[in-house]
Amino acid sequence: MVRFPPPRDPFDAPMRVEADIRGVQVTQGEVPEHLDGTFYRCVADRQWPSYVENDLELFNGDGMIISFRFRKGRVDFKSRYVRTPRFVAEQEAGRALFGAYRNPFDDDPSVAGLSRGLGNTNVFFHGGRLYATKEDSPPILLDPDTLEAIGEYDFEGSLTSRTATAHPKFDPVTGEMVFFGYEAKGPGTPDIAYYEADASGRLIHETWIEAPYTSMVHDWAVTQNFVVFPIIPLRSDIEWVKKGEPYFQWDPDEDVYLGVLPRKGSAKDLRWYKGSNRFASHIMGAYDDGRYIHIDTPVGATNYFPWFPDLTGAPYDPVRSKGYLSRWTIDTLGEGRGFTETRLSGLPGEFPRMDDRQETLPYSWGLMLLTDVPGRTAPGGGFRWLSGIDLETGRQQIYYPGDHRTLGEGIFVPAAPDAPPGVGYVLVVVARRAEMRSDLVILDSRHLDGEPVCTLSLPMRVRMGVHGNWVSAAELATRTA
Amino acid sequence: MVRFPPPRDPFDAPMRVEADIRGVQVTQGEVPEHLDGTFYRCVADRQWPSYVENDLELFNGDGMIISFRFRKGRVDFKSRYVRTPRFVAEQEAGRALFGAYRNPFDDDPSVAGLSRGLGNTNVFFHGGRLYATKEDSPPILLDPDTLEAIGEYDFEGSLTSRTATAHPKFDPVTGEMVFFGYEAKGPGTPDIAYYEADASGRLIHETWIEAPYTSMVHDWAVTQNFVVFPIIPLRSDIEWVKKGEPYFQWDPDEDVYLGVLPRKGSAKDLRWYKGSNRFASHIMGAYDDGRYIHIDTPVGATNYFPWFPDLTGAPYDPVRSKGYLSRWTIDTLGEGRGFTETRLSGLPGEFPRMDDRQETLPYSWGLMLLTDVPGRTAPGGGFRWLSGIDLETGRQQIYYPGDHRTLGEGIFVPAAPDAPPGVGYVLVVVARRAEMRSDLVILDSRHLDGEPVCTLSLPMRVRMGVHGNWVSAAELATRTA
Repeated sequence: MVRFPPPRDPFDAPMRVEADIRGVQVTQGEVPEHLDGTFYRCVADRQWPSYVENDLELFNGDGMIISFRFRKGRVDFKSRYVRTPRFVAEQEAGRALFGAYRNPFDDDPSVAGLSRGLGNTNVFFHGGRLYATKEDSPPILLDPDTLEAIGEYDFEGSLTSRTATAHPKFDPVTGEMVFFGYEAKGPGTPDIAYYEADASGRLIHETWIEAPYTSMVHDWAVTQNFVVFPIIPLRSDIEWVKKGEPYFQWDPDEDVYLGVLPRKGSAKDLRWYKGSNRFASHIMGAYDDGRYIHIDTPVGATNYFPWFPDLTGAPYDPVRSKGYLSRWTIDTLGEGRGFTETRLSGLPGEFPRMDDRQETLPYSWGLMLLTDVPGRTAPGGGFRWLSGIDLETGRQQIYYPGDHRTLGEGIFVPAAPDAPPGVGYVLVVVARRAEMRSDLVILDSRHLDGEPVCTLSLPMRVRMGVHGNWVSAAELATRTA
Repeated sequence: MVRFPPPRDPFDAPMRVEADIRGVQVTQGEVPEHLDGTFYRCVADRQWPSYVENDLELFNGDGMIISFRFRKGRVDFKSRYVRTPRFVAEQEAGRALFGAYRNPFDDDPSVAGLSRGLGNTNVFFHGGRLYATKEDSPPILLDPDTLEAIGEYDFEGSLTSRTATAHPKFDPVTGEMVFFGYEAKGPGTPDIAYYEADASGRLIHETWIEAPYTSMVHDWAVTQNFVVFPIIPLRSDIEWVKKGEPYFQWDPDEDVYLGVLPRKGSAKDLRWYKGSNRFASHIMGAYDDGRYIHIDTPVGATNYFPWFPDLTGAPYDPVRSKGYLSRWTIDTLGEGRGFTETRLSGLPGEFPRMDDRQETLPYSWGLMLLTDVPGRTAPGGGFRWLSGIDLETGRQQIYYPGDHRTLGEGIFVPAAPDAPPGVGYVLVVVARRAEMRSDLVILDSRHLDGEPVCTLSLPMRVRMGVHGNWVSAAELATRTA
């Protein structure tokens, strides 16, 4: 019997709909005619009810890709589950076979050894391939048009790690994809495998390192000359997993370590830079000048995730957990083994993004979702505002979608391939919670606080999700899989 | 630019979603394990905005089939547009090419001569084939599993009429499908073609007759020995169409005619029975005893459809247009050329259905949607109650889905193939308008006023539609197309 626990908010109930809509309705403005490409977005949407109490649906739900195909002023919508080996096994059984988040001991014996990957975190395009990813497993390749799964991908046998990050970085100069896997030898292991793939997606570099302790390494920083692994004390321990405890737990007594490696370097080149206890996850951007590495990331005083407990038993702190965009700077030639932190914004939030054409390079403009804007009230919780920040002036523009609405990650799309950095559009999915449906809103990146360029109205809600990316038609034309 | 006029009620906005949901969530009760078959339902849902002002969306919208596949206590949902030649042409153009309801003079020149069929009225199964139908055109065959269109169907060249009714009747004794086409020689023609198909779907009888005047002949009566064509003064005239006027217009000065023909009879056997001006459309059931023909139908004092004007200019009358289930009786051996009418229920409504195993035969139980129940109030308008009526006692059981909810046509499903007449389940789609989503509710046919057997909750709304049918797995197994 397919029966889900009642949702806290009706808008956040499972959808489980694989859908096609040709020509999404335009209810405001016009779709820019020249926008040609697809906005892919990854959401988590459990297909079968979990047998786990208080299952982490956002982290442990089946991955679904929603896509908006832009062409000649028309936008077509498609949503498809990521047909991971896990999804296929559960589909055949007609029920959940996999248990708690990242806990293989909780699985039905019939699926022992099968990949637990869900492809529910990010979807991106590189070297002619569309990837859906979750950091606990190898990526899945998808057909960019139909969203059908092609299968789990081990880079033609080259992927030695058991995992691959959902946050690879793309070097706009070389076309390389730079990525890593953590817990690379399996759940609880401190090993990190670092890879570079050339523009065609072929692995051309691999290095293994060991972290000071095992933790969630969700995102990282890549610059032209360095890669940086942030080790944040959201720790994991296989013994906790065996006991059925949450996979990650917050250690307020442990330091933060930033592991710096030259691009294509090897383990002997690794240096750890240490800082006091704090939380950070997503990176807006990072760059270096040969000596100094700058990393911009929302930083909170403590653990951001209410569902991962504090090892000391301290309750979740909704105020100290707020993240503020900050800049970490490492002096790679300095004597010290620390790093500095400078706050860049007083507005708390998460999901920082940038003009990806500047990834690994100096940049001066980024996007972020905000939970609070002092002096402004908005009914409901969650991400209520989208902010664009000029990192040179500190000036922030703010988009407010209206009352009882929340936002997904904002995605920048250049006005043209050669448009100046940060000049273009921002795509954002808006949850119209009172109306139980969603919009795709197109904003002018330079006038986020102005009237949207266009509002596309879906007749149903889509699940709030995690990450997504714009893939231009020119890139899609290079598909090899 | 895909932009629709704002809907009167957000719930009635276009959906345009082709969707799949595996294992629709059960929020109340349990799905009867032994129910094995598919509930198909036809809705109208415009794919491209019409260029016609005040387009008749319900009558002129693209047909979409929604299906609920029941198997082993699980229900899978699917919705697909009926890929008529018209739909395919508009899909290629990415815009509407066909104009006002049944007005070929309003079409884009590029589609001149193409079938205007929409498949938006009824979906049924006979002789191993799944048909989607609209009465102005030939039927479309569909794949019962995928809902993909197989194509417009002319009964292997045997269909001489340009149209076929959306209300064929199925003779449970012989397995025959009995049907007709009106305006059979084209828009505005008074010709009616009458057909019988054997259990395999092969045409075995054809007769042409002429109606006293051209009118909408939406439904009709078929008994073991007779067929009856009701000619109701919702008239049509090709000259009106040429002038861009509504296709049908109400003539309050014209009589009703019932054309009686023996089953498999020919035009010379036809007899017209006349009655005073009134409105009727759907038939609950009909049977004869060799001499008397009984026809049960909701009868109103005047035109039911507000969008079809009165030829005298009289405004729409929301009270006199209400229909009350009534029995028309014709004495085929009597001297008179009239018929009698007896009211069977004081509760107004429409969409009468029965246990289809009794079609053409004496029966004593039927279903109907109600707009009003004296003494009971319910916020909002439309069909708010579903009633089961015992025609022997006159007793009516009433299902009320809750405030701000409206109902689709109720469909009877036998508890078992050999269950007594009227013993089983009633399937009904409930529009939960305040929540912007729909339920499929399973009721006990003998206890409509009790707790539902089961509530299946869709995460989105589905369009309110017209007709549907249950097709058992045993029938589906006979598919030939």
